[in-house]
Amino acid sequence: MNEIHTTQVNLSSDIINFGIGQPGFDLLPLVILRQAADLRMSWGDTHFLNYGYELGDGYFRIALASFLEPHYDLAISPDTLMVTAGASQAIDLICTRFTQPGDVVFVAEPTYFLALRIFADHRLQVVSIAADQDGLIIDELATALEMHRPALLYTVPAFQNPTGATLSQERRQQLVKLAEEHDFLIVADEVYQLLDFGHKPPPPLACFIESQHVFSVGSFSKILAPGLRLGWIQAAPELLKFLADSGLVDSGGGLNPFTSNIVRVALEEGWQDEHLIDLKEVYKQRAARMGSALGEHLPDSVEFDPPTGGFFYWLGLPEIVDTSRLLQTAQKQKVGYQPGIKFSSRQSQHNKMRLSFAFYDEDQIVEGIARLGSVLSHFEFL
Amino acid sequence: MNEIHTTQVNLSSDIINFGIGQPGFDLLPLVILRQAADLRMSWGDTHFLNYGYELGDGYFRIALASFLEPHYDLAISPDTLMVTAGASQAIDLICTRFTQPGDVVFVAEPTYFLALRIFADHRLQVVSIAADQDGLIIDELATALEMHRPALLYTVPAFQNPTGATLSQERRQQLVKLAEEHDFLIVADEVYQLLDFGHKPPPPLACFIESQHVFSVGSFSKILAPGLRLGWIQAAPELLKFLADSGLVDSGGGLNPFTSNIVRVALEEGWQDEHLIDLKEVYKQRAARMGSALGEHLPDSVEFDPPTGGFFYWLGLPEIVDTSRLLQTAQKQKVGYQPGIKFSSRQSQHNKMRLSFAFYDEDQIVEGIARLGSVLSHFEFL
Repeated sequence: MNEIHTTQVNLSSDIINFGIGQPGFDLLPLVILRQAADLRMSWGDTHFLNYGYELGDGYFRIALASFLEPHYDLAISPDTLMVTAGASQAIDLICTRFTQPGDVVFVAEPTYFLALRIFADHRLQVVSIAADQDGLIIDELATALEMHRPALLYTVPAFQNPTGATLSQERRQQLVKLAEEHDFLIVADEVYQLLDFGHKPPPPLACFIESQHVFSVGSFSKILAPGLRLGWIQAAPELLKFLADSGLVDSGGGLNPFTSNIVRVALEEGWQDEHLIDLKEVYKQRAARMGSALGEHLPDSVEFDPPTGGFFYWLGLPEIVDTSRLLQTAQKQKVGYQPGIKFSSRQSQHNKMRLSFAFYDEDQIVEGIARLGSVLSHFEFL
Repeated sequence: MNEIHTTQVNLSSDIINFGIGQPGFDLLPLVILRQAADLRMSWGDTHFLNYGYELGDGYFRIALASFLEPHYDLAISPDTLMVTAGASQAIDLICTRFTQPGDVVFVAEPTYFLALRIFADHRLQVVSIAADQDGLIIDELATALEMHRPALLYTVPAFQNPTGATLSQERRQQLVKLAEEHDFLIVADEVYQLLDFGHKPPPPLACFIESQHVFSVGSFSKILAPGLRLGWIQAAPELLKFLADSGLVDSGGGLNPFTSNIVRVALEEGWQDEHLIDLKEVYKQRAARMGSALGEHLPDSVEFDPPTGGFFYWLGLPEIVDTSRLLQTAQKQKVGYQPGIKFSSRQSQHNKMRLSFAFYDEDQIVEGIARLGSVLSHFEFL
């Protein structure tokens, strides 16, 4: 999601900022969107320009279900899909409708930092659960459930932001079982689900919506274009009905009729699928190039697992390093990243850093990692 | 805003439902949007497809300021404008950022019913203030301020939904003065401001944003197309900064980059202004035709003030009539309206009804009012 805080990307700057966790401008499918917009508007009707149905345009939801089915290996009814104005808006709406201030929300440690901001805006109490290379540690979750009654549990099950970790199939089943037993709602932020580098992650938590304890949040931001502000929530119809039956959705007449009608064409014509294939290949290559550059330029004391999908490398430096402090030095060398502490809800992760390979091309990635290597080479203990 | 609750407009139905408070499908500017989309996408850049600046695209905000200035008779800095995904989303965001559950919000009696829903979703306590043909009665507001400390006051200052009343200039000044003295925030829903039938209403409450106590909410839903989900908040930069500094806006990267870039072209090319001129003429004629049909077909005991702008007639029937009960009879005669009680936060307005002239053409309006007259003719006491 958007992670540039103070201003738009400064294109004239010569810094290579791996902190930017968004698609490169070269990867945004202008041609597809132009063709899709023109085709949709050539049909001559104006229905998509008026207020629409609260759950979103019916034809779009049919097209979205058809698009997702082969990727998810799951039969999907359009009745289980609700259109939103992006994943962030989906999470915000779930908070508005299903929480009260003071409620507890469980998150992984570390987790996506702007989700933490949304929870703070809704005055929720964040409790973090330890995670490893297979995602949330279920024993830790079970222990936390002895002390808390959470309203929500927020998770990024596939290619997590920031660690790249993917929740194992066994843990997914255990997680849903605990949600049923303890009656909390899982908010699965599955925006990276389709962005594997050749090996699919386990099926999405969307497969468990019949439990009535799962919201699967998806988005076109990572697979088409963030500026569309178009996403969806997949959940049991009863839960969607409660979401849609809100002042915001009712008054607005659905959350994005115009844009969803344009993207509908991109889905129906197969252009989204073609673009996704291209995109995955690009990201796979960029990730591989970043990996080899990291091996070449960084000291052996820096640890990381190569990601198998998504946008990110998560680097572990020796305990003594504070990556927040190091950032100023790095920026002087014209390279940037996200310091680990931003992703922590317990002031931890101080020696970690998140690098995204999504925004820059391969040459820029190699140059940026060389700069980072140069920064770190000044510290003899590394 | 969207006022069809359970489903999309059923076009095959032969009911004439004056309860539908949205533009007719014949009034939605497909040609303008198609040209604007094609022109914007012909420029070749992809910036508007990525995450954007939290307050919204800078060029769009410049174009919006230039568009509003002559209508508002006001110099407008783009720094005082924030892009939103419609007026409803703007109001929802203001509630998220500037209220806590249990806070008091003042509204006019009667008022727009879906705003009441948004306030309920945020668990605000609604306190209604009496209004007359000049809008909110300031003495009543002053009295209410002796008992309550509201966080917000919500008002539709021009061509109010549902009554069509416009807040007088003198009362606008008194209202802002009270907001400063008692430190509450005014949420001015000014979506009908530009839709006069020849005589401008007083300048919008946007003229008072320097007081730091006013949010002026605007929208393209009433002047271009609701399905765009594009609106704005005009306010002091300090207040906008607090709104933008939220998880939702930050994570999403601005609230509608793609659509705002298309509408930017419609603004810059003057197409929005041309469309607005046409639209005002159509609404003026539809309102006049509804007025003459009401005079011809309805009993003299039905009272109303002809609207001077906006979307609505507000009819007062004798006290004995319950318009909620009457609706079933009316629907059998294939005519509909919004019963007054929907707009009340104190279970009042039972003998009122709101008719919109925005959705149907003149022939349908005359036919629908004739049906309504036929329904009422069965009641001898009318």
